[in-house]
Amino acid sequence: MKKWRRGDGRAILSGMPPLPSAPISVDDVLAARERVSPFLTPTPLRSHPALDAAIPGVTLLVKHENVQPTGSFKVRNGVATITALSAAERARGVVGATTGNHGLGLAFAGRQLGVSVTICVPRGNNPEKNAALRAWGATVIEEGDDYDAAIGVAQRLVESDGKTLAHSTNNVNVLAGAGTMTLEIHEQLGDTDSLDALIIAIGGGSQAVGALAVTQAVRPGLPVIGVQASGAPAVHDSWHAREPRRTDRAATFAEGVATRASYPLTLSPLIDGLADFITVTDAEIADAVRVILSTTHHLVEGAGAIGFAAARKLAPRLQGKRAGIIFCGANMDTTVLRRILNREL
Amino acid sequence: MKKWRRGDGRAILSGMPPLPSAPISVDDVLAARERVSPFLTPTPLRSHPALDAAIPGVTLLVKHENVQPTGSFKVRNGVATITALSAAERARGVVGATTGNHGLGLAFAGRQLGVSVTICVPRGNNPEKNAALRAWGATVIEEGDDYDAAIGVAQRLVESDGKTLAHSTNNVNVLAGAGTMTLEIHEQLGDTDSLDALIIAIGGGSQAVGALAVTQAVRPGLPVIGVQASGAPAVHDSWHAREPRRTDRAATFAEGVATRASYPLTLSPLIDGLADFITVTDAEIADAVRVILSTTHHLVEGAGAIGFAAARKLAPRLQGKRAGIIFCGANMDTTVLRRILNREL
Repeated sequence: MKKWRRGDGRAILSGMPPLPSAPISVDDVLAARERVSPFLTPTPLRSHPALDAAIPGVTLLVKHENVQPTGSFKVRNGVATITALSAAERARGVVGATTGNHGLGLAFAGRQLGVSVTICVPRGNNPEKNAALRAWGATVIEEGDDYDAAIGVAQRLVESDGKTLAHSTNNVNVLAGAGTMTLEIHEQLGDTDSLDALIIAIGGGSQAVGALAVTQAVRPGLPVIGVQASGAPAVHDSWHAREPRRTDRAATFAEGVATRASYPLTLSPLIDGLADFITVTDAEIADAVRVILSTTHHLVEGAGAIGFAAARKLAPRLQGKRAGIIFCGANMDTTVLRRILNREL
Repeated sequence: MKKWRRGDGRAILSGMPPLPSAPISVDDVLAARERVSPFLTPTPLRSHPALDAAIPGVTLLVKHENVQPTGSFKVRNGVATITALSAAERARGVVGATTGNHGLGLAFAGRQLGVSVTICVPRGNNPEKNAALRAWGATVIEEGDDYDAAIGVAQRLVESDGKTLAHSTNNVNVLAGAGTMTLEIHEQLGDTDSLDALIIAIGGGSQAVGALAVTQAVRPGLPVIGVQASGAPAVHDSWHAREPRRTDRAATFAEGVATRASYPLTLSPLIDGLADFITVTDAEIADAVRVILSTTHHLVEGAGAIGFAAARKLAPRLQGKRAGIIFCGANMDTTVLRRILNREL
């Protein structure tokens, strides 16, 4: 497997300049990979013939971020963020407001690097999630009635204790960390192998913006297609409107993509870079979880199944083609899984 | 990570000769690893803090064979077996009688190596399993009323077509392939890190005999402990009796360890090499599946959960210690998983 290194950015940029709106370049991703690789080994890129049989005429390659140490690609973002901090910033610690995979990624990175990590969650947050955060060594502060209140608590710790706020999306180190996933995909494909499309689930958009930064440099013709849940379509709607849109609710069990607004740092590059942006319903996501489980025996959370659900929806356009999808996370609560298997979702 | 190579066998053998009953040496395992490594990348050896929290006082390291391409360690055995065949044997093809992970391993190896693989299964075999075998390119022959009849069909193909029979256990290349897993564990641990015990699920015993061949060479003092399901205790009973014992039934949902008799090639080395041999109940295995799923979000089949179930049972003896366990397979049918989540198992 050929590995690109920092400084290769210009050499591998096949004549196409990065889009003006791009918040990161492929060199940022290569630099992030140098920081991340001592802590995270590449995840498999796999063909699953039994999964392919469930989508006739289409061949899939699956990137297995579900087997990351914290069960999601977000660990790349957490490690890329904390390794980019100065010694003084590391000594003061990092704070995040998140109840999910971003928090686990920060906690993992903090544990590996000896950096104190504090995660602010709203009161009544899922106790299993809190236990997982604590198991990775994070300090969990339960305060405030909702996510916005938890962000307020995190902000207070930034002001009072000088901690560094690690935003889950609006942060160039997060985007560069997320881009290391797509860098690995293209390296694993090599020079002779190829994809006809790359399908990326979008919550805040870190994974997709990272994918675009890398793909525009190393495979500029490859369409990157975004997907959201139809119950939480804020970024999808913003993309089609070409301006920020919000939604009042984020009604999907796929909590990894349950956002209510687009983010300043990611919306423009998504508008400029994505070839298309579609939505899938919760019923389609739940069915994708079941098919993935029965054909590959990998557990994926809703956001991790959304790529396969989208590939099925796009099957008429993908006939005879090969698409890359991401099992981007595994962290589904057992209660949700039980409902899916009992066909209550 | 230090990698041992073929020819290192004598050098790494720390003064302790292999047991006289050992059907393979560490050099056989090193040779198998050379054959296997072009097709299979090392699986992770991971710490899961949230899983540790479910077994107070004990630290676990988990070998993730559940993320092998076919969802079980048996793919090592299949690749090690087919790569050891001559060009003439490969041209005539390979036949196996198995309904499960061994068949998937052979099918994967045959697909990678361009070798025709035929799997004989009894009539009425699980259609999901048959579909998975066919998806990997195997020819599936459904004939005969039970597993013994399927073996007869396989034997007929050996005689009529000159195919090579690939037995799931009684085969030195299978044992050497299985040993590559434990070789990786010790390499991943390195010189400074260590285990206090290694717990291995036993069906036919390939995984355990492979583990013993390697461990006796590179960490001769490390206790290797065997586990079976209490509803299918033939090898366990044979070990304690120090002679072959059979059972009439193999009553466990953990089909990967559901054997009714010991095997000639593996029983003696198990008797000579295992530090202990215990059983766990199906209820304990089902609970282990649930705990593993909720704390690590990895799906494991019954045999894949049996190591954790055993570690819990051994917890009083493992206080303050670190044990290695194997998530040896993931291929649980969705219907069984649903019953486990609904606490019907």
